[in-house]
Amino acid sequence: MKTYLECIPCFFNQIVRTGRLLGMDDAAIMEMYGEFGTTLKKIRVDVPPPQTAIALYDMISRHSGLADPFYALKQESTKAALAMLDELEEKVKGSDNPLSTAISFAIAGNIIDFGISTDFNLEDELEKVLDSASYGIWLEDELTHAVHDAPWILYLGDNTGETVFDRLLIKTLERPVTYAVRGGPIINDVTMEDALAAGLDKVCERLVSSGCRAPGTILSLCSDEFLELFNSAPLIISKGQGNYEILSGKGDAPYSSRLFYLLKAKCDVVSRHLGVKTGEFILTREKRS
Amino acid sequence: MKTYLECIPCFFNQIVRTGRLLGMDDAAIMEMYGEFGTTLKKIRVDVPPPQTAIALYDMISRHSGLADPFYALKQESTKAALAMLDELEEKVKGSDNPLSTAISFAIAGNIIDFGISTDFNLEDELEKVLDSASYGIWLEDELTHAVHDAPWILYLGDNTGETVFDRLLIKTLERPVTYAVRGGPIINDVTMEDALAAGLDKVCERLVSSGCRAPGTILSLCSDEFLELFNSAPLIISKGQGNYEILSGKGDAPYSSRLFYLLKAKCDVVSRHLGVKTGEFILTREKRS
Repeated sequence: MKTYLECIPCFFNQIVRTGRLLGMDDAAIMEMYGEFGTTLKKIRVDVPPPQTAIALYDMISRHSGLADPFYALKQESTKAALAMLDELEEKVKGSDNPLSTAISFAIAGNIIDFGISTDFNLEDELEKVLDSASYGIWLEDELTHAVHDAPWILYLGDNTGETVFDRLLIKTLERPVTYAVRGGPIINDVTMEDALAAGLDKVCERLVSSGCRAPGTILSLCSDEFLELFNSAPLIISKGQGNYEILSGKGDAPYSSRLFYLLKAKCDVVSRHLGVKTGEFILTREKRS
Repeated sequence: MKTYLECIPCFFNQIVRTGRLLGMDDAAIMEMYGEFGTTLKKIRVDVPPPQTAIALYDMISRHSGLADPFYALKQESTKAALAMLDELEEKVKGSDNPLSTAISFAIAGNIIDFGISTDFNLEDELEKVLDSASYGIWLEDELTHAVHDAPWILYLGDNTGETVFDRLLIKTLERPVTYAVRGGPIINDVTMEDALAAGLDKVCERLVSSGCRAPGTILSLCSDEFLELFNSAPLIISKGQGNYEILSGKGDAPYSSRLFYLLKAKCDVVSRHLGVKTGEFILTREKRS
């Protein structure tokens, strides 16, 4: 997905929201506005938004003096999610369709996204998901078959905290899973340290870094080691908007037939691109051309 | 009200929304982003947002080549509103409290605001207003008394089309009213031509220009003739967010005790400033200090 014109105001929203979250004063945030504003003349709209986000969050790190500005918040998110794990696991086990329930929980966890909003209620989201989540596209049967047939699965992580619900889903998949984390800290995206804190090593065969420090898996920036896994994985589960924005729309890519997207549609641009309503839960794959 | 940091992303939203409305292509809109982006380093946040909007919409006029980009849309808005006038007038006349009903209609008309959104349903808004409008602050008794006591009223207009519902309210006030329009075209704000098209001359004693071409009445930019009226008016009714953003928060200003605000709270910044929920109908005045 390219960067849409509507993504530009959103970048400014991310600057002010993150600045406020980090306790920066108005003058410091205005300085970031000014700096980012001067880059607009040469900004590339032919790349997906997460690629632009690298420079944006680098700037925020530089101005805030924090290499990993969301470090403490990520730890809190993991802790809050871990506190819910046992209860949710019971619900999955007691469900008529454990895989379906675990997928829904894993997508509900996708609301922990400080790039989109700082104003969410995790417990409430998880509490109500089975009763009232709205499902936009939901190719559950296709994914179920693909999981059944897959000797192993590459799972592209997204946000920290959400990782705990990924853990529950991965346990439910009952397949060897390699879990990929970001190449370094950006927003609240999952790093190796965050994945370990969520206990993903307990359910995965292997944890790997994508080698790319963007809020999404930009293949041209990933390590050779990761690309080898990506290119050989019989099934790839991609979590979240960032990964979707980068990998989608390439129906002819060699990976397209092996990849499923799990996400909550969290902004109008992505919703329009998917043809769904904002807020809906999505389990989809590339349309065959 | 000063410009809040959250207003900056909104300015970019206004650029893309207006650009698209005018049929500008992506490259042309990106150019406006770039130009506006370079001004951020020196943007003033100590002035209300409508003051910044002057330069913003000047830029849009320059890039689009249209001195009054919303001209056709304004004519459509007036026509659509006029088509509803007779029916609404019957409702006002048949109401237990005609003034209250007319005020509600006049505020409902405040959704015709292309600076905020291009996506609204005027008929629906007017249809449901009496049943389901949510009233945030509603000092109706105070305004009723003030109208009763006022020898004449200065009414600060806001958007074109909304003017038709102002006309209905003004007729219901049964007082001599001077109606103030903007000093020139900006967004879909009312100009003298627009006011005449709405038939405001049929119910007002006088139509005047504020002399200020901003989406709000910035006193320092108004004509001496207008300021004389403003300073001497026994009662001022100020319509819309723009006028509120400029005139509010000055409890010690000489006009504060003579001025009532009628608006729909249409953005989070203004809602927070008012202490109400976005979407609520507001009839308020300056808090006495």
